Amino acid sequence: MSVDLKAVKNALTWRYATKAFDPSRKISPEAWAVLEDALVLAPSSYGLQPWQFLVIENSEVRQKLKAVSWNQSQVTDASHFVVLTTLRDVSADYIKGFIRRNMEVRNLAHDSFAGYENMMIKNIVDGMEKTTIRTWNHRQVYIAMGFLLETAALLEIDTVAMEGLDPKAYDRLLGLEQSPYETVAAVALGYRSADDKNQFAQKVRFPKDQVIKVIR
Amino acid sequence: MSVDLKAVKNALTWRYATKAFDPSRKISPEAWAVLEDALVLAPSSYGLQPWQFLVIENSEVRQKLKAVSWNQSQVTDASHFVVLTTLRDVSADYIKGFIRRNMEVRNLAHDSFAGYENMMIKNIVDGMEKTTIRTWNHRQVYIAMGFLLETAALLEIDTVAMEGLDPKAYDRLLGLEQSPYETVAAVALGYRSADDKNQFAQKVRFPKDQVIKVIR
Repeated sequence: MSVDLKAVKNALTWRYATKAFDPSRKISPEAWAVLEDALVLAPSSYGLQPWQFLVIENSEVRQKLKAVSWNQSQVTDASHFVVLTTLRDVSADYIKGFIRRNMEVRNLAHDSFAGYENMMIKNIVDGMEKTTIRTWNHRQVYIAMGFLLETAALLEIDTVAMEGLDPKAYDRLLGLEQSPYETVAAVALGYRSADDKNQFAQKVRFPKDQVIKVIR
Repeated sequence: MSVDLKAVKNALTWRYATKAFDPSRKISPEAWAVLEDALVLAPSSYGLQPWQFLVIENSEVRQKLKAVSWNQSQVTDASHFVVLTTLRDVSADYIKGFIRRNMEVRNLAHDSFAGYENMMIKNIVDGMEKTTIRTWNHRQVYIAMGFLLETAALLEIDTVAMEGLDPKAYDRLLGLEQSPYETVAAVALGYRSADDKNQFAQKVRFPKDQVIKVIR
């Protein structure tokens, strides 16, 4: 049942930060559904999923986002463009909503989760500085980013993760300013253009023994 | 060549945060090599790889780390235990070393990268606050965490990501205090114990249409 080792290694090696997408090629609905699954099923601390993913289909909105993303062509040329947003804060209400979801999915009474709920409220809402919660949420969404990028590679779908954007301008254009969510980064997904020279460049990584140290 | 959609979906659904590992089961060297590839090949901003991964084989060190990880059994019982560390800072020297690696791998002269090198030094070393660089590095390593967790799931290897640890105590125990790297999180990998009740619990996620919004 496990996926072939070589197929996984190939996908990891095959992927690269796509500079130019072929605007004519679209991701199939079947593959897109699995990419959405990767986002939904990505793990997060306590399972809190302090995030929301915005899939920008509207081409006018994409044009406007491109203008606040160093005019990078991927914003408009990729098949799909996803903005990764995170909660500005984690409130007691949010945690209670998460516990309600636990009760619903696992068909259990509140009693089963009361201790867990209190522990989370104590550790997070009462125990963490607002700025710490914010950077913590930012970190979490990079797990989902990883899942999205790797899943795409497995399906031979090209991607680029984008941090080179103005998050405040994104928030304004996407109407997030008064919402609990804020923009952190974005991912463009689709198929590489034949003209993208980056696809031919050798991947640059430090040697394995420099990146991974074994403590014997 | 692409991996079967259903196999990927199955792996994403199959994985869970493993509470108890079977200490007798070890990850094969062949599978471990691919897990190391996932760490080495994970993408990062500018490709800078501001990280180092410590694989803790020494069982005494594992015991000591467990004591500063809320005594979570996974630290000692899992087949493999990896500490994710990141650079405390990104220096001009580090960027120059990265450019040298680019020259080496792509067999190109310094001229080919001089502009890129200057841009990175200007944007990062001169342009970013130290605290911003630090939280940025912390975010990057969560991409690698995502790659490690997803790759393991594809190979039917169980994992748990651990933030519930004392990073300063880890740094002390691992001799990182005077090094450029600091502990951020850890991942335990191996095979679930038959007694781990968590494997039978339904995975809790918010509904897809709550997590993913389409801007039409």
